[in-house]
This record gives sequence, C-alpha cells and structure tokens, in this order.
Amino acid sequence: MVYRKIGVGLLGYSSMGKAHSFAYKVMPHFFWPPPAIPELVTICGRTESRLKAASENFGFKKYTTDWREMVRDEQVEVVDNSLPNDMHHDVTISALEAGKHVLCEKPLARNSLEAKEMWEASCRTSAKAMVAFNYRFVPAVLLARELIKSRKLGRIYHFRARYLQQWLADPSFPLVWRLVESRAGSGPIGDLGSHIVDLARFMVGEVTAVTAVTRTFVKERPLPDDPSTKGPVTVEDAFAATVEFDNGAIGTLEASRCAAGRKNYNNFEVNGENGSIEFNLERLNELRFFSREGDAKTLGWNEILATDKVHDYTLPYRPHGDALGWNHTFVSEVYHFIDAIVNDKEIGPIGATFEDGYRNNVILDAILKSAKENKRVNIRL
Amino acid sequence: MVYRKIGVGLLGYSSMGKAHSFAYKVMPHFFWPPPAIPELVTICGRTESRLKAASENFGFKKYTTDWREMVRDEQVEVVDNSLPNDMHHDVTISALEAGKHVLCEKPLARNSLEAKEMWEASCRTSAKAMVAFNYRFVPAVLLARELIKSRKLGRIYHFRARYLQQWLADPSFPLVWRLVESRAGSGPIGDLGSHIVDLARFMVGEVTAVTAVTRTFVKERPLPDDPSTKGPVTVEDAFAATVEFDNGAIGTLEASRCAAGRKNYNNFEVNGENGSIEFNLERLNELRFFSREGDAKTLGWNEILATDKVHDYTLPYRPHGDALGWNHTFVSEVYHFIDAIVNDKEIGPIGATFEDGYRNNVILDAILKSAKENKRVNIRL
Amino acid sequence: MVYRKIGVGLLGYSSMGKAHSFAYKVMPHFFWPPPAIPELVTICGRTESRLKAASENFGFKKYTTDWREMVRDEQVEVVDNSLPNDMHHDVTISALEAGKHVLCEKPLARNSLEAKEMWEASCRTSAKAMVAFNYRFVPAVLLARELIKSRKLGRIYHFRARYLQQWLADPSFPLVWRLVESRAGSGPIGDLGSHIVDLARFMVGEVTAVTAVTRTFVKERPLPDDPSTKGPVTVEDAFAATVEFDNGAIGTLEASRCAAGRKNYNNFEVNGENGSIEFNLERLNELRFFSREGDAKTLGWNEILATDKVHDYTLPYRPHGDALGWNHTFVSEVYHFIDAIVNDKEIGPIGATFEDGYRNNVILDAILKSAKENKRVNIRL
Amino acid sequence: MVYRKIGVGLLGYSSMGKAHSFAYKVMPHFFWPPPAIPELVTICGRTESRLKAASENFGFKKYTTDWREMVRDEQVEVVDNSLPNDMHHDVTISALEAGKHVLCEKPLARNSLEAKEMWEASCRTSAKAMVAFNYRFVPAVLLARELIKSRKLGRIYHFRARYLQQWLADPSFPLVWRLVESRAGSGPIGDLGSHIVDLARFMVGEVTAVTAVTRTFVKERPLPDDPSTKGPVTVEDAFAATVEFDNGAIGTLEASRCAAGRKNYNNFEVNGENGSIEFNLERLNELRFFSREGDAKTLGWNEILATDKVHDYTLPYRPHGDALGWNHTFVSEVYHFIDAIVNDKEIGPIGATFEDGYRNNVILDAILKSAKENKRVNIRL
Repeated sequence: MVYRKIGVGLLGYSSMGKAHSFAYKVMPHFFWPPPAIPELVTICGRTESRLKAASENFGFKKYTTDWREMVRDEQVEVVDNSLPNDMHHDVTISALEAGKHVLCEKPLARNSLEAKEMWEASCRTSAKAMVAFNYRFVPAVLLARELIKSRKLGRIYHFRARYLQQWLADPSFPLVWRLVESRAGSGPIGDLGSHIVDLARFMVGEVTAVTAVTRTFVKERPLPDDPSTKGPVTVEDAFAATVEFDNGAIGTLEASRCAAGRKNYNNFEVNGENGSIEFNLERLNELRFFSREGDAKTLGWNEILATDKVHDYTLPYRPHGDALGWNHTFVSEVYHFIDAIVNDKEIGPIGATFEDGYRNNVILDAILKSAKENKRVNIRL
Repeated sequence: MVYRKIGVGLLGYSSMGKAHSFAYKVMPHFFWPPPAIPELVTICGRTESRLKAASENFGFKKYTTDWREMVRDEQVEVVDNSLPNDMHHDVTISALEAGKHVLCEKPLARNSLEAKEMWEASCRTSAKAMVAFNYRFVPAVLLARELIKSRKLGRIYHFRARYLQQWLADPSFPLVWRLVESRAGSGPIGDLGSHIVDLARFMVGEVTAVTAVTRTFVKERPLPDDPSTKGPVTVEDAFAATVEFDNGAIGTLEASRCAAGRKNYNNFEVNGENGSIEFNLERLNELRFFSREGDAKTLGWNEILATDKVHDYTLPYRPHGDALGWNHTFVSEVYHFIDAIVNDKEIGPIGATFEDGYRNNVILDAILKSAKENKRVNIRL
Repeated sequence: MVYRKIGVGLLGYSSMGKAHSFAYKVMPHFFWPPPAIPELVTICGRTESRLKAASENFGFKKYTTDWREMVRDEQVEVVDNSLPNDMHHDVTISALEAGKHVLCEKPLARNSLEAKEMWEASCRTSAKAMVAFNYRFVPAVLLARELIKSRKLGRIYHFRARYLQQWLADPSFPLVWRLVESRAGSGPIGDLGSHIVDLARFMVGEVTAVTAVTRTFVKERPLPDDPSTKGPVTVEDAFAATVEFDNGAIGTLEASRCAAGRKNYNNFEVNGENGSIEFNLERLNELRFFSREGDAKTLGWNEILATDKVHDYTLPYRPHGDALGWNHTFVSEVYHFIDAIVNDKEIGPIGATFEDGYRNNVILDAILKSAKENKRVNIRL
Repeated sequence: MVYRKIGVGLLGYSSMGKAHSFAYKVMPHFFWPPPAIPELVTICGRTESRLKAASENFGFKKYTTDWREMVRDEQVEVVDNSLPNDMHHDVTISALEAGKHVLCEKPLARNSLEAKEMWEASCRTSAKAMVAFNYRFVPAVLLARELIKSRKLGRIYHFRARYLQQWLADPSFPLVWRLVESRAGSGPIGDLGSHIVDLARFMVGEVTAVTAVTRTFVKERPLPDDPSTKGPVTVEDAFAATVEFDNGAIGTLEASRCAAGRKNYNNFEVNGENGSIEFNLERLNELRFFSREGDAKTLGWNEILATDKVHDYTLPYRPHGDALGWNHTFVSEVYHFIDAIVNDKEIGPIGATFEDGYRNNVILDAILKSAKENKRVNIRL
C-alpha cells in the first residue's frame, strides 16, 4: 500500500528538536496506519557544526542555517518551530504566510502583542497552526479533562497548580542564558507558568483575574565562562499567584526553579461540587480521582493507572498498565497535528490553537504586571 | 509518692471540650511522672442538660452555666477556654486577671484588636497563657521545624500550605451557625487559615505581606430547622492568598471547606536552598524530607515515620512506628502547658504564646482586608 | 445517673499492661454511655518495685505479686492476662475456673496443646473469654472484612501478608529474652505470625495447609549484661510460608525482625474475582480497595481514609478524617469485651474467641513443623 | 561520517515484535553515536497477511514465513527471536549455528532440558547470545542492583517478589491459547515467574531451594470461537512459593493473572543488614531505598526518581525527572546487545546470558515439581 508522505522542516536542534524529531520518526510505528508518514526534509539552526551532527542523529536529509530558505522550501509542508521564544514571532508568521502548517513551541510568543499578531496570521491562512502544549496529550490529563467536561466533578470550585523544578536551588549554579531577561524574556513565568496556565484553561476555562508576587532569590550568579566573576540575574526565580475564573472558581498558580527535590513536578488539583482530581507529572501515568457518588464507606481517592486500552492516546503504545514516558507526549502531539492537516480536522479543543497561545500570553503578561504593580490585574483580551 | 495536683476548669463541652478533657485525664498515664496530676474540677457551658451529661462523661466534679463563677473558683488553677471565638476575649481576660493560667482555643480572638488586648492582659500577669495551636505538637511537625531551624534546608525560598475540608462541597448542606458571620466571624480564614498561618510562622518566620481572594460559592443554603427555606451564607467558603516573609520567602496559603475528598487535609511544603519538607495531616505520623546532600544517585524524598523514640513527643506514647492519633496532639499540648506552669518554663517557642495568637490575628485581618480591597496588604503590628 | 461498674485485674505491667490499662481508663470517655465503667482494682506482676510504680502510673487501687490472689479477688470481675506466653495457660484456666471473664494476650498459648485446654476451659464456663487480637479493631481492617463478607471482592483467590520489623537487622543487637527459645517459645512466628494468621482467618477463612522455611540469620548475639561475650540465638529471625485455604485461595505469609526500614509493617493484600484490598499497619487509617465494577476509565485503587463517621469503631473517637492511633485499637477492644460481658453478647465473630486462639496455635505449630520437616503440613484440629 | 550498519532479522510480529522493532529503529536516535545503525532486513512469522502488514508498519525491507530462510540470509547479522516459547529451541540453535547473534525472548525455553542445549549451542560459537529480560534495563532496577552489589544493604536477608496481573480474574474471560498447556507450556510460572526469578538472581544471587503451590481457580472457560461452550484450562492461574538463596537469604515468589487491580505489577523488596529497597514496575521510574546509616531522626524510605543524569541508562533519553516508559527498556536492551556485538563486550552481568536463561529454567522447573510433589525441591544444575 502507498501511504501519503508529509515533508517536515524542523527549526531547532536542542532538547525540543530532539524530542520532536523522535516523534515524527516513530509516530507511524505507533499510529498505524498513519494519516501520513512524516519525511524529515530539513533542519535549521544557528551553529553549523551542531546542526550537521543533529541532522545525522535525527535523520534529516539536509540542513540550513537560513530559516527563510526552509520557509521557501517546496518539499516542506510542515514547519516545526522549536526555536527560543525570540524566534517565534517572525519565523512563524513567515511560515504561515508561505502556506506552511506550523507547530510552534510554547509559550507562543514573548508577550501578548506578538502572540496576537501570530494568532491573526493563523486566521488568514487555511494552513493548520498549533502550539506545542504537549502535556495536553498525557492520557491522565485527557482523562482529567474528560471527567470535568462530562460533569463528573460538577461545578468547579478550585484549581491549584504548581510547576516546580530544582535546578536553581543551588546559588552556585551559573548564569546561563535562561536567567538573562534580554534573551529569555522571563523566568519560570514563561517556561513553566505557560504550561500550568494552559492546563488551567484546558481543564477549567477562562481566567478573569490574577494577583502575583515574584522573587529572584539569588540576585547574582557566577558567569558560565568565568566562575570567579558574578553577573546579575535579570529574570524571576519564582512566582506565586492567585487566580480567578469566569465560572467562579478560585485558586493558586506557582512556578519555581528553586524547589529542591522537585525535578519536573507539574502538579495540579481541581475540586468541584461532586469530586476532585489530582495530577503530578512525575507520575504521569496516574490520575487521582475522588467522587462523592457511591457507597459512603468506600469513598476515597481513586488512583487510576491511566494507561489502559480505554484511555485516550494509550492504545497505540501498548495497553494494560505499561508506563508511557515523557517522550510519548510528543508522539501523540505530532499525530494529532498531522491528522488535523491530512484529514482537515480542527486543532482544538484537544490541541492548543494559536488563539489558546494568545490567551495564554495575555495571562502571563497579567502575572508580570500584577507582581510589578502590587495589585489585582483583570484579564482583558 | 504524693503528686502535685492542679485544678482544671473547662469552658465548652463540644468537640474541643471532649478532646481537651481527654487530654487532661490521660496526660499522666503517658507522661509519667507528670509535672502535676490534673483534677477535673468544673465544666462550664450554655445548655444545662448537655453540660450535665458532659460533666458525667468527661468526669468533672461539678458544672456551671456561669463562666464568672468558674473564674472565681479557688479550686481552679487552669482555665481552659474551648468556647466559640466570640467568648474568647472577655472570659480569657477575666480569668487572667483572676490569676488563672489560661489555655485558649484558636484563633485567639475574632480580630487583632481583641487579640491585642488579650495579649496585653497576659503580659500583666505571671500566670501562663497559651493558645491551643495543637498541630505544633505533632511529632512530624516538630521534626520539620527542627530541620528548618538547624539549617538542614538552608535559606528558605518557599512555604505553601493548603488546609482543605469537604463538608460544604454539597450545596444542600444546611446553614449552620459557622456560616453566619455574626456568630462565626469568618469562614475558613479563622477556622483553618489560623492553623496554617500559625504553622507558617512556626516554620518560616514573620509574614510581611499578603494578597488574597475569597469566594462564597454557595450563596444560600437550607435553614437547619426548615430545609424548605433558604438563608444567606455570610462568610467565605474559601480563600486563596499569596504570602511574603521577612526572610525573603514567598508562597501561597489556601483554605476551603469545598474540597471534595479532603477530610482534614492540612498540607504544607517548604523549599529551601538545600532541601525541602512536606507534611499532610491526613498522614500525621509521616514527614517527607528531601536533602541535596549525599550520593547523587540516591537523592530522593525521604518518607520518615516520625514515631520513633528519637522523635520529640513520641516516647511516652510508644516508640517504634506505632501510629499516633489526632487525640494525642492534645495530650502533648496539655503536658507542655502544665509543665510550663508547674516548673515555670516558657510557653514559647514550642507552645503558642498570646503574642503568637495576636500576630496570627493580624495576618488573618490582612487576608480579609486584601480580599475586600483587591490589593496587597502589608502586615503592620 | 448511676453506671454499672466492673472490676478489672490486670496481669502484666510492661507495654501491653500500659496499653490495656489506658484502654480501660478511657473507654467510657469515648464510648458514652458505656456498658460499664471499668474500675482498676488490682495489678499483678513479678517485680514489686516496678509493680508499685505501675500501679501508681496506671491508677490501680492495689497490687500483688501473687496471681492466685488476684484470681480469688471478689472485686475482680475481669482478668486481663497481659503476661508472657508461658504464663497464659495456667493463669487463664484458673481465672476461668474462678468464674472470671478473661481477656488474654496473643498468641493464646505456646502451642496448640495448651491452647486446646484453654479453649476447653472457656467452654465450661459462662464467663466471657477473648484473645487480644487488637488489629481486628482497626476500622480499616473491619472495613476490609466487611467488603469481603459482603462479597464485594467475589470469590477470594489470594491472601498475602507480611509482618516486618527491623530491630534485629543489626547483628550487634543484644540477646534479649525474646531470642531465647526456653523463654519465648518461638521468634516472629508467635509474636508477629500469630497476628497475620489471625487476620488471614478473619478475612478469608480456614487454612488447610502450609509450607514454610525459617532462618536464624544471626546465630550469636552479645549478652545483654556482658556485651563482650556472645550467646546463641535459639529462635528463628524470620519465616516465609505458602498458605492454602479451604475456599481454594492460596498465598504467602512472612514475618521477620530483620527487615530494615519496617517499623511495624503489618501488610496484607487480598485478591478476589471482583476486586482487591490492601492494608498496611504503618498507615492504619487507610484501606486501599479496587473494584472491577464501574466505568472502565476510572477503575483504580481507591485510597479510603477509613476514619469517617460511617466506619465501624470510629464515631466515638472523632469523625471526618482525624487519624486514630495504635492506642485506640485497645480502647475498642476493651469496649467490645465489656459490652459482651455486660450485655451478654457473643465475642465472635468480631472479637477473637478462644476457639480462634486455638485454631491460630494449630497453624503456628504447622508452620514450625513444616520448616523442620521440609514438607507441606496439612492443618488438622 | 559513515556509521557501521547491522542487519536485523526479526521473528514474530505481535507485541514483542512491535516493541523490539521500535527499539532497533530508535536506538541510534537516543544512543548517538551508536555502535551500529540497525537495518531492518527481514521479518518472519506464520500468517502472511499479518506479516506483510507488520513489515510495512515496522519498516522491514522484506518478509518471509520460513524461518530457515532468515537464518540463511547473509544480510542478517542479528536474529531476534520473539516467537512463542515452543519456537525458541530449534530456531535459536539453528541461528547460532549459522553464526548469527541471537536475542531470544524469555523464558529461554519451555524447560531446562531445552534451555541447556541452547546454552551449550551458545558456548560453541563466538556470536553473542542474550535473553531478553528487559526489566534488567530499567534504571531503577539497575540502581537497586548497584546498591546491593556495592554493599549498601550489607548482608541480604530477604527477597520477596510478586508479579501480578488481573486479566484472568474474570471467570468469563475466554480460553485463549495461553491457557492451554500444549501451546503455552505453563501459565504465569513461565510468563511472569521467569521475570521475578531472573530479578532474584540479578539482585541477590543463586537459588538453592523452592517450595511451591499452584492453583487453577477457574477450571473451565468459554471457547474463544464458541462462547456457549467451555473448555478446560490446563495451566495454572497462579503460584506461590518460598525461596532460599545460597547466601542464606529467604523469601517468597508469587505470580498470578487473577489479581484484580494489578495491571503489570512486578513488585520486589530486598531487606539487608543495613538497608532495604523496594521496586514496582507500575511506577518504573521510582526506587524506594532505606538505609540505616545517617541521622536517626531522618531515617526513612527514600523515594528516588531514578531518571536523573547520574543514573545508568537514562542520559540518552532525557535527564532530570522526565518519565521513561516501558518501551524504553527495549531500546536500552537493544543498545546493550548491539554494543556487545560491535565492540565485543560481554553480555553479562548486566545483560542476561544463555547461562542465565538456563539457570532460570531450572528454577521454573523446580517450582512446577515442588507444586506437584508437595515438598521442597533443591536446585541442581
């Protein structure tokens, strides 16, 4: 049988580049027959030596250091933008204007102004545009959303999320580029906060207001190239915020890179009139679910191994309790994206649209503003 | 051998009255030889029939509906004020002025003005005055504090606490007195929030600012006596707040009675430069502790069963892993109080002084004010 | 109101003596109105100085070093035998013959021959006789049994239990009397194994066969009085066994005092046609329950905090998620025993009868025999 | 750069075939630069239509229904035998005799006689031969072994393992081929028991004796093609065994397909003089480790997320707490095998040699024999 092929151009060769190229490569292995078989046409990045090595490792036919060349490339149908945030706006809009389908890493942009222009660009083309909020594709997260949307929790009262990592707990950790505002835009607000803001909207709905506080605990860190000299950290180390939703729910959002012992701890809890759920990315195959229905003597927190054949996005991998890994989230994400392209399906509500990306950036901006101005900030689009 | 006796007068016969009278009764059984053997002299409450039954059940020699009579009673050395919050200020001050030692239930008062007067009264007497923040006496909590104070966590970056209960998740739950502002003062801010604010100060130190949001999710509930009619709920169902400490740490505080599945879930986490701790009252015998020190391959969250003979306030009960119950917190609390009286020791820093109680009320007031005024409120004593 | 009183004579003043006297003292506090109010009449033990101190601490009116005196004492209605195993047979039978109600610590006897005579003695009197298998009174254990008996698990396929402690993991731990066969009878087979054999019968039913292996890992240990000299350990350090039930179920039983990290880890799991349960004494307030019934997407292990008002033997202590401690098991046990005496109720099936105690000893004997003879041993009464 | 290629012939196209072909495909993506790049030359199976589909899905160049053809194929350097157990002996020996490197699924053979011949065949060739005990390559399992081998647990006292699945708990589940002795050889003894016997040897060392009991709970099941008719189940549903090791340790082994709620629950615990470890495949990224060393107040069970860059076989996937999935075990396994081939390294002790496979079968035979003869069976090679 002859399968449709789809040409992929990947921007970025570091960790997301590796994860995405893995996903294109094995998607058909798991999702068989696939909507189309991805062909790894070209990879683009800044440093030629690393780019060449990555193209061999990941299996691309060619490489280029000129993103405009990729955007013009007729063999490329899909542009995957896994570049840093400051390369999202221009490249993505150019790709969309060239008629390419675009999968863009999160957060969509450095701020809501950029994000709005990107969203608008996506509205002017029939090509598909998706933001790579990969945690939407964790089966346990999809189950959480399904339980909420099917009203198993009833009216939602609370959403609380904390995304904690530990790599900056040690004050001697060097001043890498992610700690420099001019290059990174923000600290964990953009990097980690964008994920939990997306999950908040994915689970509960639109946010109406936030109040936030931020801290840079370690104001100076050793320079990577000269550890005897210190330079200033110009992004936040952590933020803590309250959040209000248009359905009346309230809660908290927190992200930090200074939480010793938390490796990749993206944890959220939702409490509703009839039940609650809890999720933790460090145990990504599990969902904890409490329901007020049933025999009073056996009510409890149900620890669900959400890797059974009945759970969404598990069957292709292998049913019956076998653990999925972090890498699998990208495989499902890429399947969803290519299926939408080939079969002209909607990206949302399961995939994150550019409108989702824009609304996400609006909330991130509000968190930054609230922390600066010491007051509640209402969300206005 | 002849043991010193100490006469106890107890105000209140419902759940706290039961817990406290149990504690006086069995303290010498566990802490032997005891600093003094409590004698249950008299119990005071509003409704005579219930009072009489309680005095028999709890083993008091006599009872009275007139608290002034108890305050004057020469057989009474210790006044235990387990009455509702609106009966804390006047009764406690009178007892202190009569030279009685006073153990007062938390929160110390309905607001910081009342609390300040109570604290001042305690400064004018040589009698001992203590606020009944019983969770300070959980061995796992004491261990948590010890790890922090001995710098095992290094500089503290984060404190986050949530005290969640579920009894109001169901909108058909009736309008009991705790939901009426004129009687209860506030909702979970005073009842549950006071505990986590106390633990925040016990663990991390003084609070400098809060921002908060509150919600009353269910605005009307059936009247207890006439379920066909509804009345207005006039206290909050939940609050969420950010918190800042004078040592630079930030975090969140939350309390709710609408968290389905959470029975008595008082959970806090502290992250520091060198380690982290986590505690959950529903597993009160356990403390989770992460340290960055040691072999990198075996770093992890250490699940400590804090019921060994080496842990504070465990040995009298029974060592070696046998679970302590919620009731034991009161036994240790009463031991600490009577030991301070008989041997003229300080109540603090392990026991909560009336200054602690006052500072607690100041923060609770700030949470209420921040929620009303939509802005950050600095803590001013 | 005037309450019936019931006179108690306690044999033994060490850990079980302390736990039992606590239970008699506070039972009416929790179970109010009580079937009768226990009066601590007399306590009996070997060493007068320790006995005197215990009688003061525990609150007994008098003490004696002559158990025959207690058995004759007209003020004593209940004899509580908390002595070592070699003092169970003679004392208990004498007490029963004197018309006393007897609560005897577990295991009932040193072997099944003794136990049979004790059971027969209990059949010749109208007095109540109960074996102190206190873990039957853990609310989570009672819930486990109820789920099994009400067929929520369907046909039972498996029972596996392990009772692990750590105090002998260290080879330098001294040769205490529990490690000397002439005084202790056996090692963890009697001490810990008797508990899990009782729970096996309480949950699943009668045992038909066992095969077992035992080990004494550390053959010699320092003498307590002269650590420079070593003496031989003459009981097993651990056993492992397979077990078969008359309903067709199979499983394993294990007990060890050499399991580093296990403080009082009495853990069992039952698997049935329609569901499973798991319990762990180190988290005694929790039961994990899996049911195959319900929505396939949310099947999971239900973590039940078995401390709600709907759970048996929780209401008196305090409902709604507050932890019960190890001490509470004795309070409920004593309530059950005195309620049976005063209101002439059956000890079984919730309380352990002397027949249960005898059947327990038969199985323990079979485990010892199987280990010695390297073959399967069928259970014959 | 030009990379060495290595031709792979795969026998079997169902679940193991899928998992193995995924592993060959992506190994170089993760382990870069790879020892060699696998080329998927040919796949062999019984049913041509399914075989053709699998060859397309998995990406093989050609396919054949004649395993002898594959064994002769000069393009094939590696023969991967993922066929059912009755096809292990002849095919594997032929492949070895043809000079192919062989990776054979577990258990190595249907019985120890077959296995011995296979082991002997492996000794007569310089080709590499490895048994696919993939759980050896779970980073948490490798860490467990390392802790034991580096004496962190001291002398080992106990090993207990249970491998539980639930798919036969329901009596209406049909009589699939795995339940027919003539086709499957045995039930969970071979399928699941072989894994835990391998882990027992991998962790603790050689086994000297076993006693076992087996059960077939559901004697008849509906025929797959005619559910109105039932046929006899001719393999065991479960076994339970005691186990003794040559270093003196004792413990238990259990496997069952009738454990409701256990999806793929391969759980083992090791207790030693100085510490303990616990592992559970349903949380395969975690290891629980207790050490008696350190501050007595903070001794506890250390929950290690064994996915950090310091842990073996994690770095290629992605460090810092991101979950590995079940699929990754095969990728590491294939890397280990190809690295051994290309760089002429030893398969053992990390990979399972054919001697390991043989010793494994000897123990499985002893379990079956002990259950039949109701006595302890010593292990004799």
